[in-house]
Amino acid sequence: MTDDRVLATYRLRVPADQAAGRAEALALEQSIEMPAAAVLDERVLREVVARVDRVEPQPDGSSLAHLALSAESIGSDAGQLLNMLFGNSSLHTDVTLEQVALPPALAQRFGGPNHGVAGVRALTGAHGRALTCTALKPIGSTVDALAALTRTAAGAGLDLVKDDHGWADQTSAPFDARVTACQTAVDDANVRRRDGGRTLYLPSLSGHHGQMQRQIEFARQRGVQGFLVAPMVCGVATFNALAREHRDCVFMAHPALAGAGALAPPMLLGTLLRSFGADAVIFPNHGGRFSYAQQTCQAIAEAARRPMAGIRPALPVPAGGMSVERVTEIVHEYGTDTVLLIGGSLLIARDQLAQRAEAFVAAVHAAGNASAVAA
Amino acid sequence: MTDDRVLATYRLRVPADQAAGRAEALALEQSIEMPAAAVLDERVLREVVARVDRVEPQPDGSSLAHLALSAESIGSDAGQLLNMLFGNSSLHTDVTLEQVALPPALAQRFGGPNHGVAGVRALTGAHGRALTCTALKPIGSTVDALAALTRTAAGAGLDLVKDDHGWADQTSAPFDARVTACQTAVDDANVRRRDGGRTLYLPSLSGHHGQMQRQIEFARQRGVQGFLVAPMVCGVATFNALAREHRDCVFMAHPALAGAGALAPPMLLGTLLRSFGADAVIFPNHGGRFSYAQQTCQAIAEAARRPMAGIRPALPVPAGGMSVERVTEIVHEYGTDTVLLIGGSLLIARDQLAQRAEAFVAAVHAAGNASAVAA
Repeated sequence: MTDDRVLATYRLRVPADQAAGRAEALALEQSIEMPAAAVLDERVLREVVARVDRVEPQPDGSSLAHLALSAESIGSDAGQLLNMLFGNSSLHTDVTLEQVALPPALAQRFGGPNHGVAGVRALTGAHGRALTCTALKPIGSTVDALAALTRTAAGAGLDLVKDDHGWADQTSAPFDARVTACQTAVDDANVRRRDGGRTLYLPSLSGHHGQMQRQIEFARQRGVQGFLVAPMVCGVATFNALAREHRDCVFMAHPALAGAGALAPPMLLGTLLRSFGADAVIFPNHGGRFSYAQQTCQAIAEAARRPMAGIRPALPVPAGGMSVERVTEIVHEYGTDTVLLIGGSLLIARDQLAQRAEAFVAAVHAAGNASAVAA
Repeated sequence: MTDDRVLATYRLRVPADQAAGRAEALALEQSIEMPAAAVLDERVLREVVARVDRVEPQPDGSSLAHLALSAESIGSDAGQLLNMLFGNSSLHTDVTLEQVALPPALAQRFGGPNHGVAGVRALTGAHGRALTCTALKPIGSTVDALAALTRTAAGAGLDLVKDDHGWADQTSAPFDARVTACQTAVDDANVRRRDGGRTLYLPSLSGHHGQMQRQIEFARQRGVQGFLVAPMVCGVATFNALAREHRDCVFMAHPALAGAGALAPPMLLGTLLRSFGADAVIFPNHGGRFSYAQQTCQAIAEAARRPMAGIRPALPVPAGGMSVERVTEIVHEYGTDTVLLIGGSLLIARDQLAQRAEAFVAAVHAAGNASAVAA
């Protein structure tokens, strides 16, 4: 029976003597949303109500409640999975969702990354080292400025150039014009490359599933092979459907609207978004503009890459105020199956951007060699 | 210029002497995501970077930062609005989004409720009193059980019968079979009504925009005129598009995945979801299973109904563990332009469900009359 259940671990911030009762209330809230005494159907009580497997007091005074949710309630809809895991409970202040283990059959229906670590390496020719990425900023720029920026970044040998996640279909650089110009810039740079590598350009998708499909179709016709999506903005069902409908494309997930921890970042970004189709997952690295603890960042990377039945590993993308000066530290911390994303810290070089981008690439290559020697 | 800006008020939980700097960092984070010093385009600095209008220290030690975001960055995409308002900042623990004022032109592009308070009254024939609603529970039930429940609720004269928000396309009661049976049950009851009223059945939509479109088309062919959607699960762009594509339908918004307050509930549920197309917005009432303060609940109801240029008022739907015994209190608190949603507290009556549903309806009618007399 366990194979048919989604196993979820919640942290309850209630006095220890109330934890068992809170766990039972949580099990009802995240399944049938009514008192068990009001249920007439015995099958529902036996098979559909979430089961409390155990409640463990923690040293910090909280408790961990291990629940088993019925897979029947979820079907194979990623949105419905989030709804059943944490829909109503997201409104509560005393509970967070810490871990999720999907039945292998469900994870395989979601499908996971199309390319994963090895696939993105194959597409970019980046082997034996971490990967490099920058973001096209700022929103409000003209298409010409973005194309020039893309040309410089690709010319410096960056593996990935992605739209800033604030890009939608703005008048200053509408999707179609932006994508056409930036992919052309990448194509031009790739033709000149002599090291066997090539840059991928990842435009940002916006709107609903139908609008994103149109954007993908347009971009694919221009040679684009990957996309940036913010699954918590567009909805995870949309994200999962796009990944399954475009199995030859790379999807990078952005954490916008992911919240400050009620959905634990390793679980949400590392386990779930990977399961739904993220080849790479961006997260705010410690020591930047955001406040994730180092331990949280490590756990995200671990969850993104850990073995999972039938699902490829994803690339963690530490970001959010990183700098070229920190490259060696980041590569040593996360290892080479990592994408280093540096945006503003390249652009601050202004007319020295090309040199700064080349220094970024050189630092990552050097760090990769150092790790290989050390290993 | 103010007319072109989205005005957003954030609460900063930082020491007062850091609030001004935090507000400036927030303005960059929620617009160009890079240091202003790295921007080469003067127009971007002048027109695209979010502007800090003022920062006000509060008695509790927090500060309110009033920002003006460029409408150009947002276009008319509801998802992009959330992204620009709080995408990255949702990852921060020291900031919450308290209030949003949309430029009238943008609110009108989003379009607001199709029917609003008066329209839902016209469709149901519910006048001079609050409206009644129940939810079809529990998930896992058979289609026959749900149809019987619907028949009983509609027979008792409830104005609205909605799917529980846990319903998707489960095998125990697939969408098509469930909707056909429940709408038939409502139609049968409506034929028998002699008081000029009629019950609306609102099925729950799941998946992405294309899947929801198919569900809506199927349901409309069976006579369904309204739907339940969880916009934070499916994405607000999807929700807004559906509301605009089906202008004769009623949309009730469920707060699943709305979070525990970082997006302030009056702003999110009352202002934004109403703007995106919610005719009615469910929220967890105080004194039930959830922990919203009474003041928060009042503010949600006020935001849902306050005058807003070119946008209809929406019906607040206090819910989450309400009981028939609290009807008079709830109607006196919220007034009659309110939907009372009672689920489990009806079902707990088991074989006395019909009588309990009739008592609910009678209590709301009586409370409405009492208010009318008092007014």
